[in-house]
Amino acid sequence: MAKYCRMLFVWLVVFCMAPLFVEAQVRHEISFPDIPGYKTLKCDLHTHTVFSDGDVWPSVRAEEAWREGLDVVAISDHIEYQPHKEHVKHDHNASYQIAAEKARSLGVLVIKAAEITRGTPPGHYNALFLDDASELEVDAFVDAVRIANEQGHFVFWNHPLWKGIEKGRWQDIQQQLYDSGWLHGIEVANGSDYYPEVHEWCLEKNLTMVGNSDIHRPSMIEVSTADNHRPMTLVFASDVTPEAIRDALHAGRTAVWMEEKLIGKKQYIEAIFDGSVEVRPPHFRQKAGFYVHMINRSHMNIELKRMGDVGPEEIILEANATSVVQIKHPENDRPASLEYEVANFLIAPGKGLPVTLAIAGVRAGRTAVD
Amino acid sequence: MAKYCRMLFVWLVVFCMAPLFVEAQVRHEISFPDIPGYKTLKCDLHTHTVFSDGDVWPSVRAEEAWREGLDVVAISDHIEYQPHKEHVKHDHNASYQIAAEKARSLGVLVIKAAEITRGTPPGHYNALFLDDASELEVDAFVDAVRIANEQGHFVFWNHPLWKGIEKGRWQDIQQQLYDSGWLHGIEVANGSDYYPEVHEWCLEKNLTMVGNSDIHRPSMIEVSTADNHRPMTLVFASDVTPEAIRDALHAGRTAVWMEEKLIGKKQYIEAIFDGSVEVRPPHFRQKAGFYVHMINRSHMNIELKRMGDVGPEEIILEANATSVVQIKHPENDRPASLEYEVANFLIAPGKGLPVTLAIAGVRAGRTAVD
Amino acid sequence: MAKYCRMLFVWLVVFCMAPLFVEAQVRHEISFPDIPGYKTLKCDLHTHTVFSDGDVWPSVRAEEAWREGLDVVAISDHIEYQPHKEHVKHDHNASYQIAAEKARSLGVLVIKAAEITRGTPPGHYNALFLDDASELEVDAFVDAVRIANEQGHFVFWNHPLWKGIEKGRWQDIQQQLYDSGWLHGIEVANGSDYYPEVHEWCLEKNLTMVGNSDIHRPSMIEVSTADNHRPMTLVFASDVTPEAIRDALHAGRTAVWMEEKLIGKKQYIEAIFDGSVEVRPPHFRQKAGFYVHMINRSHMNIELKRMGDVGPEEIILEANATSVVQIKHPENDRPASLEYEVANFLIAPGKGLPVTLAIAGVRAGRTAVD
Amino acid sequence: MAKYCRMLFVWLVVFCMAPLFVEAQVRHEISFPDIPGYKTLKCDLHTHTVFSDGDVWPSVRAEEAWREGLDVVAISDHIEYQPHKEHVKHDHNASYQIAAEKARSLGVLVIKAAEITRGTPPGHYNALFLDDASELEVDAFVDAVRIANEQGHFVFWNHPLWKGIEKGRWQDIQQQLYDSGWLHGIEVANGSDYYPEVHEWCLEKNLTMVGNSDIHRPSMIEVSTADNHRPMTLVFASDVTPEAIRDALHAGRTAVWMEEKLIGKKQYIEAIFDGSVEVRPPHFRQKAGFYVHMINRSHMNIELKRMGDVGPEEIILEANATSVVQIKHPENDRPASLEYEVANFLIAPGKGLPVTLAIAGVRAGRTAVD
Repeated sequence: MAKYCRMLFVWLVVFCMAPLFVEAQVRHEISFPDIPGYKTLKCDLHTHTVFSDGDVWPSVRAEEAWREGLDVVAISDHIEYQPHKEHVKHDHNASYQIAAEKARSLGVLVIKAAEITRGTPPGHYNALFLDDASELEVDAFVDAVRIANEQGHFVFWNHPLWKGIEKGRWQDIQQQLYDSGWLHGIEVANGSDYYPEVHEWCLEKNLTMVGNSDIHRPSMIEVSTADNHRPMTLVFASDVTPEAIRDALHAGRTAVWMEEKLIGKKQYIEAIFDGSVEVRPPHFRQKAGFYVHMINRSHMNIELKRMGDVGPEEIILEANATSVVQIKHPENDRPASLEYEVANFLIAPGKGLPVTLAIAGVRAGRTAVD
Repeated sequence: MAKYCRMLFVWLVVFCMAPLFVEAQVRHEISFPDIPGYKTLKCDLHTHTVFSDGDVWPSVRAEEAWREGLDVVAISDHIEYQPHKEHVKHDHNASYQIAAEKARSLGVLVIKAAEITRGTPPGHYNALFLDDASELEVDAFVDAVRIANEQGHFVFWNHPLWKGIEKGRWQDIQQQLYDSGWLHGIEVANGSDYYPEVHEWCLEKNLTMVGNSDIHRPSMIEVSTADNHRPMTLVFASDVTPEAIRDALHAGRTAVWMEEKLIGKKQYIEAIFDGSVEVRPPHFRQKAGFYVHMINRSHMNIELKRMGDVGPEEIILEANATSVVQIKHPENDRPASLEYEVANFLIAPGKGLPVTLAIAGVRAGRTAVD
Repeated sequence: MAKYCRMLFVWLVVFCMAPLFVEAQVRHEISFPDIPGYKTLKCDLHTHTVFSDGDVWPSVRAEEAWREGLDVVAISDHIEYQPHKEHVKHDHNASYQIAAEKARSLGVLVIKAAEITRGTPPGHYNALFLDDASELEVDAFVDAVRIANEQGHFVFWNHPLWKGIEKGRWQDIQQQLYDSGWLHGIEVANGSDYYPEVHEWCLEKNLTMVGNSDIHRPSMIEVSTADNHRPMTLVFASDVTPEAIRDALHAGRTAVWMEEKLIGKKQYIEAIFDGSVEVRPPHFRQKAGFYVHMINRSHMNIELKRMGDVGPEEIILEANATSVVQIKHPENDRPASLEYEVANFLIAPGKGLPVTLAIAGVRAGRTAVD
Repeated sequence: MAKYCRMLFVWLVVFCMAPLFVEAQVRHEISFPDIPGYKTLKCDLHTHTVFSDGDVWPSVRAEEAWREGLDVVAISDHIEYQPHKEHVKHDHNASYQIAAEKARSLGVLVIKAAEITRGTPPGHYNALFLDDASELEVDAFVDAVRIANEQGHFVFWNHPLWKGIEKGRWQDIQQQLYDSGWLHGIEVANGSDYYPEVHEWCLEKNLTMVGNSDIHRPSMIEVSTADNHRPMTLVFASDVTPEAIRDALHAGRTAVWMEEKLIGKKQYIEAIFDGSVEVRPPHFRQKAGFYVHMINRSHMNIELKRMGDVGPEEIILEANATSVVQIKHPENDRPASLEYEVANFLIAPGKGLPVTLAIAGVRAGRTAVD
C-alpha cells in the first residue's frame, strides 16, 4: 500500500513537472551554402556523455547540436574507458538511444558511434553507424576495428598527434588498417588543434578529412573559450540520412571548419566559396577605379590576399556581412576580374584556395564606362 | 614663397594621409523581406549633423546608415536652430552635399531634407526631397511649409507629443496644413517614444506613418542604450530612387520598426510577416501532437499569442532563428492551421495582427498520419 | 591475461588523457559588497544532476557555480523522482560526493541536500546540510521532513505557487510543519518566477527568504534566456562554512537576487545598497545646480525613483558603472541630500527601499559654494 | 519685427529642446591600479575633430573619453591640414574650448593641444598644454616646435613609421630637435600599429613613451574593429591636473596600453602588475601539488610564461577575473614562489617583464603542510 502511494506520488510529480520544461528552444543556423548536387550538413562526429567520461546526459548533446545549428551529431562514448561506471550502468548503446529520442523531437540526426580507445599507438578511433556498440568491447584492438568494419561502418583515427608528433606518426598499425581498407578518415582537427601533417596524409592517401569537437563538458563551457563555434565536419550529402552521410564520408565529400579555417579538397571548399561570396556590380565608378559590394553569406570571416596586380592587398570579408571594396586601376583600363588567394580556405597545409573574382557588369579594357 | 611651401606641405600631407583611412567598412544587413511588388527599404528620415545641433560631420550619417543596414537616410538639419553657427558657416545645403558624396561610394541613398523648427504649436516638421533647403528660411511657418510643398515634396510632423499631450494635440494649424494637402505624414515613433494617439490619427486621416531616430550624437552612443537598432521607417518602394521613395511615402506604403514593435497598415505588416515566418512540415509526429520548426527570417523577435484552441498560449520566434514548437491536439484530430495574434505587429494601437499559421503538409481531420 | 592487457590499456588511456582536460578555468566574480559584520555569500540552494532529473554530471554544478561567481551550491536531487534510474544507480549521496570533490579544487562550497518531492499539496521541499540523504526515502511525507530536521537541518518549501495559486496556498500541512518548527524558509523566487504572496508570508511568519535556480540543464543553456544570471540567495554569513551558512539561514540573514530585483528584509538590502552606491562630491557646480558622479559597484542595475523635491525623477545606475547626474535646485539653495526609493530593491511586495542620498561635500542652505 | 519673432521662436526651441538631451550617461571604468605614489591616469593624447580632419564635434571627444573610462583626452587638431575649412571657420583654439566645456560637466580633463603637420620628414608632432594654438601656424617647421616649447610644453613625434621604415627612421631633424631639448616623447603605438624600433629609441634616448588613438571618426566606429579599447597612454601622475600630467610626461612616467600589450619602463609596468595580480593562499593541497586562485584586477588579459621549474608552462589570467591554477611539485617539496615572464608586458621589444609569484601562506621546503 505504501509502495502504491509512493508510486502515485511519483506519477503526480512526473505529470506535474512537465510545465517546468516548457522553455525556449532556439536554433541559430550556421550559414554555409549547399553545394551543387549536395546538401552541406554541419556534423560533429565525436562527442562524449556521462556514459563514458563526458559530463552531460546524452539528450544534452542532441539539444546542443540543434541549438548550435548542427544537423548531425555522433555520440561516440569510449568503449574501454568508463570512469563513471561506479554510478552509471555499463551499456554501450544507451547514450545513443537517449540522445536519439531527444533528437527526434528537435529534428536533428544522431549517429550511433563509439570510440575504440587504446594507448598510443594505436590510439583512439571512432566507428560510426554502429548496429551494436557492445560488440566492439573485445580484447584485441584490430578485432575491434574489424568488427566495426564488418558492421559496414566508417572508421576514422582521432587526434593522431595528441600524444606528440613522435607517438602520433603514421606507423605500422595504421598502415595495416589502411591496407585492409579498415581506416577511412582521420581527424585533421580536434578541439582547438589543427594537424597540418595529418592534412598532408589525407591528401596523399585519399583519406576522408574530418574535424570534431571531442566535447566532454557542456558545449557552452567547453567551446566558449574558442571562437564561438565548435570544430565540425561539413559533409556534402544527398540527404539527411545515415546512409547518405555514410556514402559522403566514404566518398571523401567533406570539409573541416575549425576556428577561422576551412580545410578540405579544392573542389569542395571552392564550391563553398562560390556559394558564399557575391561580388556586386560596381555601384560607383570613377576614372581610375570603382567601388563594389562584396557579400559574404557564410558563417566565416573570409581572408583574401591579392595574387594579381589589381585590388587591395588584403580583403577581409566579415561573416554574414557586406563589405565595400574600392578597386583602383590604371585610368580607363578596367579589369573584369581580380586574382586572389583565400588565405583561410586551405587546400593543403599553408596553401590557400586561388580564386578569380569576376567584377559583375564590367567588361575589361579601355572602353568607356559600361 | 613661404605660402607655396606650405601648400606643398599640405598637399604632401593630404596625399600621404590616405592610407590611414583604409579601414574595414562592414555592413550588417537588416533582414526584413521584400513584399510582393516592392522592395523593403530601411529608411531613417530624420537625422542631424554639425550643420544644425548634431554632433557629427555629415559623412558620418552616411557611413552609420550603411554600416547599420539602412538603405536610405535623410539629413534634416534644423533651418532655424543653428547652435554651432559661431563656428560652422551658415549653409542649409552643405550637410546634404557632404553626406551624399560619402554615400555614393558606399551605395546608400541620402535624401535632402530639412527640419522646419518652430515653438509648439506648430512644432517641428521635416520636409524631404528638397531642391534648395535655404528657401525654407522664411519668417512665417506656413510659408515654409508651402514652399516645401511647392518644391513638390513630402512633409511630416515630427514627434507631435514631444512637448506633452496638451501641446501636441491635433490643433488648428495641423488641420489647416492637412486641409491644404500640405501635411503628408506624422512620426508615430521618434527615438525611444511611440505615440499611440498619433498612430490613431494616421489611421483616421490616412496620413503616412513614419518613425525615425532624430539622431544627434554618434549613432552607437545614442542608440546603444535602446535595443540595438534605431527606430526606422520601412518604405515599400518600386526602386531605390528618390522618386520611387517619394511615391511610396505619398501612397502611405510604410511601416515603422521601433524597439520590439512593427507598426503599420495591416496589408504591409502582414506582408512582412508572411515573408518572414516559415512553418515547416512536422518533423516528428505522435498520436496527440507533432513538432514543427518555425523559422523567423526577420530582424525582430515575433511574439505570437494564441487566439484559437490549439497550440501553445504564447510563442516567441526569436529573430533570425529557428524555434521548435510542440503542437498538442486531440488524438488523431489534427489541425491544419493555428490561429494567433502577432502581439508586436500593431495594426492599430493595442491591436496585434491576426494570423493563421498553416501547418505545411498536414491535412486536417481524423485521418491517419499523412 | 587479456583482462590484464585491457586494464593496462585503460590505465594508459587514463594517464594520457589528463592533458586534454587542462583548460581555462575562469571565474567572474559577482560584485555584491559584504555587509557590516558578515560576508555576502552568493548561493544557489536548489540544483539537480543526472542523479535525479538533471542533465549534467554533478561536477558540472560545482564548475558552473565557480565560473559564475557563486560561493555556495546545494546539490538537491529529488529523493522520490528518479527518471534516470534505468541507467544511473540509486544513490542519494553520490551526487554530493562527486560535486564536492570537484568543488575542493575550485574553492567553492557544496552543500549536501535533497528535494523531498511529493504531489501538491504538500509539494516539494529542500532539506539542506544532510548527513545521509538516503534516510529521507520514507513513505510518509511528514516523516521525511521530521528526519531532515532531526539531522539538525534547514528545510524550505520550493516554488509554492508552481501548481497554481489555488494549490500553492498556505494550507494545513504547511501550518503543521511551521508549528512544529520544521519549516524554516520558502522560495520567494524559483527560476524565472517571483511570488509576491510568498514574499508576504515570509514577512508575516518570519520565514527565511530564499531564491534559487532549480536548474536541470547546463546552466548556460537554462539561464542564458533570462538576464545573464541565475536567481540566487545572498546569505550574510560570518564565514564560508556550512555551519556559518546554516546559522545565517536560521537567522533569516538572506536576500534574493532574481532578474532585476533584490528582495529581502530592509536591514539587509539597505546594507547592500549602502555598500554598493557611492555619491561623489560634486565635480562641477553652477548657481542652480551641480553635477555628481554616482558609482554603482554592484552587479545589478539600480533603479531610483524620486520621492522628494530635488533631483531627476528617475535615475538608473548601471551595474558596475559610473553615472553622471545633474542636480538642479533653486538658485543658491543647495540640498545636502536627495530622497529616493530604490524601485527594484523590494522590502515588501511592490514596496521599494527608501534611501537618502547624501551629497558628499555639500552643506545645505543659502551659503556660497563650499 | 520678423527678426524678433524668429529669435523668440529659436529661443523657445532651444529652451524646449533640453529634455531631449537628458539621456543615460554611463561610464565604464578601466581597471588599472594606481601605483605607489601616483594615480594611474588613462589618457589619449592624440584625437581629431571637425576642426581639422575629424568627423565629430569636439564635445563628442569629451563624452567618448568619459564613457570609455579615460581620465584625460587631448584635442590635437592639425594646424596645417584643414580639409573642412570651406564650412568650418578657421580657429585653432575652438575645438579645445568646446570639448573642455562638455568635459567639465562630466568630470574628465581635456588638454589643449595641436598637431604640427608636415610632410615626412619631419612628419607630424603633437604639442600639448598649449596656451594659444594659433601661434603654431608659422611657415618653418622648426619655428613651430620652438614656439610650442617656449610656451613651456610637451612635444612628441607621432606615428614615426607611418610613411614606412625608410622615411620614418631617426634623421637629422629629429636629432636637431632632441639636441635642442624640444622633443620629449614618441608614439610607440598609434591606432593599431606598434613600433618596436621606436620602443628601442625611447629606451636608448630616454624619451617618454606615449601611445594614442589618433582617432578621426566616432570612437565606437573606429575602435570597434580592434579589441574593444583604444590605444592609450597610462600616465602616472600625482594629481588629475594639467601640471601634474605635464610633470609626469616630462619625467617619463608612462606606459602604453595597445591591443593586448602593455609597453613601458620596467619599474612602471611592474607596479601595474603588482597592483593587478593577487595570488591567494592555496585553497586545496595534495601531496604533490596545490590549487591557488590568481586574481587579475586589471583590464588586460595577462599572459604568463614559465621561466622556472614549477607551474604550468603558460597561464592566461583573464581580465577582471579569477583563475584557478594547479601547481604540481615534487612530493612534499613545496615551492614558495614561481618564476614567470609576463609575455605581454613589454619592458623592451620582444622582452616580457620577469615576475616572481609568491605563493601566499606557503613556506618552501620539505616540511609538513603549513
